[in-house]
Amino acid sequence: MEREELRHAHPRDIRWLIREGKWREQTAGVAEGHVQANLAVVPEELALQFFTFCHRNPRPCPVLEITEPGMTDLTYLAQGVDLRTDLGKYRVFERGECIAEVDNIVDYWQDDLVAFLLGCSLSFDWVLDKAGVRARWLEAGCTGCAYVSSVLCTPAGIFHGPMVVSMRPIRRDQVVRAVQITSRYPPVHGAPVHIGDPAQIGILDLGKPDYGAPGRETRVDADEVTVFWGCGVTPQEVALHAKPKLMITHLAGHMFISDRRIEELAVL
Amino acid sequence: MEREELRHAHPRDIRWLIREGKWREQTAGVAEGHVQANLAVVPEELALQFFTFCHRNPRPCPVLEITEPGMTDLTYLAQGVDLRTDLGKYRVFERGECIAEVDNIVDYWQDDLVAFLLGCSLSFDWVLDKAGVRARWLEAGCTGCAYVSSVLCTPAGIFHGPMVVSMRPIRRDQVVRAVQITSRYPPVHGAPVHIGDPAQIGILDLGKPDYGAPGRETRVDADEVTVFWGCGVTPQEVALHAKPKLMITHLAGHMFISDRRIEELAVL
Repeated sequence: MEREELRHAHPRDIRWLIREGKWREQTAGVAEGHVQANLAVVPEELALQFFTFCHRNPRPCPVLEITEPGMTDLTYLAQGVDLRTDLGKYRVFERGECIAEVDNIVDYWQDDLVAFLLGCSLSFDWVLDKAGVRARWLEAGCTGCAYVSSVLCTPAGIFHGPMVVSMRPIRRDQVVRAVQITSRYPPVHGAPVHIGDPAQIGILDLGKPDYGAPGRETRVDADEVTVFWGCGVTPQEVALHAKPKLMITHLAGHMFISDRRIEELAVL
Repeated sequence: MEREELRHAHPRDIRWLIREGKWREQTAGVAEGHVQANLAVVPEELALQFFTFCHRNPRPCPVLEITEPGMTDLTYLAQGVDLRTDLGKYRVFERGECIAEVDNIVDYWQDDLVAFLLGCSLSFDWVLDKAGVRARWLEAGCTGCAYVSSVLCTPAGIFHGPMVVSMRPIRRDQVVRAVQITSRYPPVHGAPVHIGDPAQIGILDLGKPDYGAPGRETRVDADEVTVFWGCGVTPQEVALHAKPKLMITHLAGHMFISDRRIEELAVL
């Protein structure tokens, strides 16, 4: 099934396709207008520290929902969910190493695991596009290109590390509008963290994203400015630095597709 | 010292007066333009559940800062703080009962306690006033009048109970403006939770507030509408229902006075 065919599909149906193993692509561009989310799962003994980390770093790690220990369903973002199977691809980290990249996490699940669903900026791409902000990256397929920046997150407990950011080339005369629009959606990263020269936040080669879609086009045209947002892949980079005994995440670009509509999250 | 004398004082100086036992009044109207915060302290074993409760109920319980277990200082809201002494009055709850109302909590402090600082709506009174919204309650001294509503909070772990709300009588032609202004400040409760008839959220007698300043004037004039906001006293009501082994809070109206300015929190 092509991604374009799922643009108008209901999130529930796409989650079902994923659970059944019938579709497992990157989720940019599917379920138009709906909120997508990053996943980060840790054992209960680390959950308070990780929650605190997210709270102190709301730009990369805005918490949309947190589960009770051991629960695999959600209540706010959707119902009838099985977090072990309803994302397309997962990564498993043990003590700072990614030990597996898998299609489901049934074999890794434990009764003490707490899941954090973090907002994803793919959610506001719909709004930017509808508002007439030229979203060339949507056609270019460079959504999901994320970079490890030199900006350090505020630590909490064992959790620390650099902020991962996503980049969008925005037409110069639309940069202010893009700031205004995304500021309305703090739960999916909100306003940009940096505008302009990538080197100022430690990104030396836009052609080599650290997460997402390496090799995809990351062209920046003469009339465009590079604009960077906090990215929900940050916990994966943090797992490498903080070496928690266990963290399970989605694979970048393979998001949880929620039933919430982006306008439900607007602050004003 | 009169409250009016502290209107232009620096928050640090007021915290110092409180720590030294030289001033211990309700904090409405002091340290103009600065953010005030509610306090709720629980043992580490309950902190994840309580944090989750706050996250699920952002209107009454917006978390401004959370401490590491045992720490009595802050980093974001202010530095050089001792949470055991820097609020004017505290309440101590054990298993659903308020067992003490004290001037400091030095004797109650334990190494496993985690402190949550929750935004307080006194913080946006400055903005409403400056914007020309008639803040008659400021002169009338009915700030800090809070009511237990019939709206139930979303539970998390052991924590559950009704939402406590604060009331402001707003001039009818300024209600929309009051919604717009307060919506900009989610970290200090944000938009109202109810506009109009108090009975619709279970409040039958405005003259009898459950928290804060019983007996203070709660007059509503003919050209005014009652507008209700989530209130950070909610954890105290929740302590009565959920009966956690220990919870320590401030006494309603005796807030933590932070160094942050209200405009630092505006979302847009």
